[in-house]
Amino acid sequence: MTGFDELWRELLPIGRAADTGGYRRFSWTPDDVSGREWFASTAASLGLSVEVDRNGNQWAWWGAPGPDAVVTGSHLDSVPDGGAFDGPLGVVSSLAAVGALRARGTTLSRPLAVVNFVEEEGARFGLPCLGSRLLTGAVSPDRARELRDPAGVTWAAAMDAAGLDASGIGADPARLGLIGTFVELHVEQGRGLVESGSPVGVASAIWPHGRWRFEFAGEANHAGTTRLADRRDPMLTFASTVLGAREQAALAGALATFGRVSVEPNGTNAIASLVRAWLDSRAPDSASLERVVEAVTTLAAERGDRDGVKVTVTPESTTPVVEFNADLRDELSALVGGAPVLPTGAGHDAGVLSAHVPTAMLFVRNPTGVSHAPGEFATPDDCVLGVEALTTVLEHLATR
Amino acid sequence: MTGFDELWRELLPIGRAADTGGYRRFSWTPDDVSGREWFASTAASLGLSVEVDRNGNQWAWWGAPGPDAVVTGSHLDSVPDGGAFDGPLGVVSSLAAVGALRARGTTLSRPLAVVNFVEEEGARFGLPCLGSRLLTGAVSPDRARELRDPAGVTWAAAMDAAGLDASGIGADPARLGLIGTFVELHVEQGRGLVESGSPVGVASAIWPHGRWRFEFAGEANHAGTTRLADRRDPMLTFASTVLGAREQAALAGALATFGRVSVEPNGTNAIASLVRAWLDSRAPDSASLERVVEAVTTLAAERGDRDGVKVTVTPESTTPVVEFNADLRDELSALVGGAPVLPTGAGHDAGVLSAHVPTAMLFVRNPTGVSHAPGEFATPDDCVLGVEALTTVLEHLATR
Repeated sequence: MTGFDELWRELLPIGRAADTGGYRRFSWTPDDVSGREWFASTAASLGLSVEVDRNGNQWAWWGAPGPDAVVTGSHLDSVPDGGAFDGPLGVVSSLAAVGALRARGTTLSRPLAVVNFVEEEGARFGLPCLGSRLLTGAVSPDRARELRDPAGVTWAAAMDAAGLDASGIGADPARLGLIGTFVELHVEQGRGLVESGSPVGVASAIWPHGRWRFEFAGEANHAGTTRLADRRDPMLTFASTVLGAREQAALAGALATFGRVSVEPNGTNAIASLVRAWLDSRAPDSASLERVVEAVTTLAAERGDRDGVKVTVTPESTTPVVEFNADLRDELSALVGGAPVLPTGAGHDAGVLSAHVPTAMLFVRNPTGVSHAPGEFATPDDCVLGVEALTTVLEHLATR
Repeated sequence: MTGFDELWRELLPIGRAADTGGYRRFSWTPDDVSGREWFASTAASLGLSVEVDRNGNQWAWWGAPGPDAVVTGSHLDSVPDGGAFDGPLGVVSSLAAVGALRARGTTLSRPLAVVNFVEEEGARFGLPCLGSRLLTGAVSPDRARELRDPAGVTWAAAMDAAGLDASGIGADPARLGLIGTFVELHVEQGRGLVESGSPVGVASAIWPHGRWRFEFAGEANHAGTTRLADRRDPMLTFASTVLGAREQAALAGALATFGRVSVEPNGTNAIASLVRAWLDSRAPDSASLERVVEAVTTLAAERGDRDGVKVTVTPESTTPVVEFNADLRDELSALVGGAPVLPTGAGHDAGVLSAHVPTAMLFVRNPTGVSHAPGEFATPDDCVLGVEALTTVLEHLATR
């Protein structure tokens, strides 16, 4: 399985922050553009023809683009100070698998493509899986064009500045119609495969999940002179909500996290006027997820009444449960030696596509379970086993 | 009492943010430089000679600089989105009082100076009353030069960029020795004068107060896949500490506020690796203040142990109780018609100077008590009464 190590080492330095060792590959930034250039040149060197779709996703074709294609791939963007594996492992493994099939002299019976989806993490513009959502029409082009990064730059402006044309983004049914099967390989983001002792697994489902923006609006005032009784301090309401969210998640067997906070005016000696914080929540089923978010919203509003703080909750994105195609799942599990089948709490482009085409995911074991952080990891041996599994799957699907 | 309205209107637009109506006059920024230029030209038009001391504070002299001078003034910098009155009311009232004394043809028996202190709020470089602390030697020049703003710019670089020379900063005993009496007029930052029904009051004391930086260090991980039991989430520890600080302050009759927070990596779907938050605390006496900060530190550490989060607490500045000169206080209260005497929780340059020279403060009534926020306010009539009181005080002190 030559090729994986070399490709991996080429990609590794792009977008890595020297101070943390984490990655900051945000869509349309110079590091993202470098990653895209690497993808295009690597694919070309494998004899694939590379094109960019109307939404900025890159496609590398083996054979002329056509219907019933087998498509694989993932994404190259990262969360802030993310790990090296989430996304890139799937892209590099896809290219390495193509290289392996080429080396074997495989003759395909249908087209095969490797895809690099843009803005999967939503780290810059706030809406995850934006590239696949645009492709499938799950988000409107008008909404996408107006999404803004923390500096106020719109998706449209950033895409145009990278040399593309944001005026043409939107649903692309003709391209979607070419996909016969989609397979995404991804590092596991938990320790399910560690517990089952397997290097590779197959996804059963993605938990329903979403992001909700909580705005706690109080009143700025002097921290040194305003009596406690006269305060309308939104930090108190926020703090109480953080602790309440954890409790509600534990009760429901779900997950709830506040990991992003923005405070105004954010002065040491000023009571905050506004705390904005984002709730990320996931649960095994939609009813549990709704119950958690409703309970947290109610707790926040009740505490807000006591604090004189107005609480507003806005859903930014919600994704229903994804059950991957059962036939394909079982077929792939058998193909790769009876790999275990397991669910995940993380969203993926595969989840978006699964509503439209038969879709599957392969997971590669993560010894620590760490994800979205510099410590994210898979062993070189497991990475190679992942490429072998993906190669087997692609050969099976594209030659039958 | 001509002059106040006109001067106030001239200064009002400088550094006002259109989106919030608050002020962002941070030391050495273009808006701060504009304010300094306004101070210099206004003082010159009143016939005062303007100079800048080695630490960047501006001094406008009536009469040649000399010993036993009566000095008045305040500052022009603001907290983020601060109000129009905190600082500028004292500077404008001082200049208006000089104008009134000039108009009356007053003959001084000693020099009189109006001072504009730099970085009183500590909003840009984190250490409040920096101009007066440098003057009095309360902070070392080496430490001051290395203070950094949120973008990493040092005090030395910012001061140099504004055309001054940071290599010469530090204690200035010769200049300090010129001050016979210091009087600072300030908008009240509470509602003590509303309750006593007086437009003007005299300060008795400043509560001991300080700033402590709390660092909550956990482990970044994926918010959608990391089991609750596997998390080391510093947001939980922080939230618990916010609520604990409020409780401890209430128990001690003190104040404790977390108004400034910074989160890493601050991604919606990432558990935070680090939460930094600043505790501002004040109390009627030093023992109470220590008790509050110790209790909050202990609570944070205990909760951190449960969360797998390391808590580090660093004092950034602490200021002991200030009791203003009692003779001067009583003299001024009698001079301005038996004005009430009251303490404050807010730090001031007057508090720093009071350790070295007889110092007093006049407060002007604040109808809402709002401070450090755009709603900060004093009525035009009360402002004029403040200028009249200050004029009376300066005339008394500088002609006797």
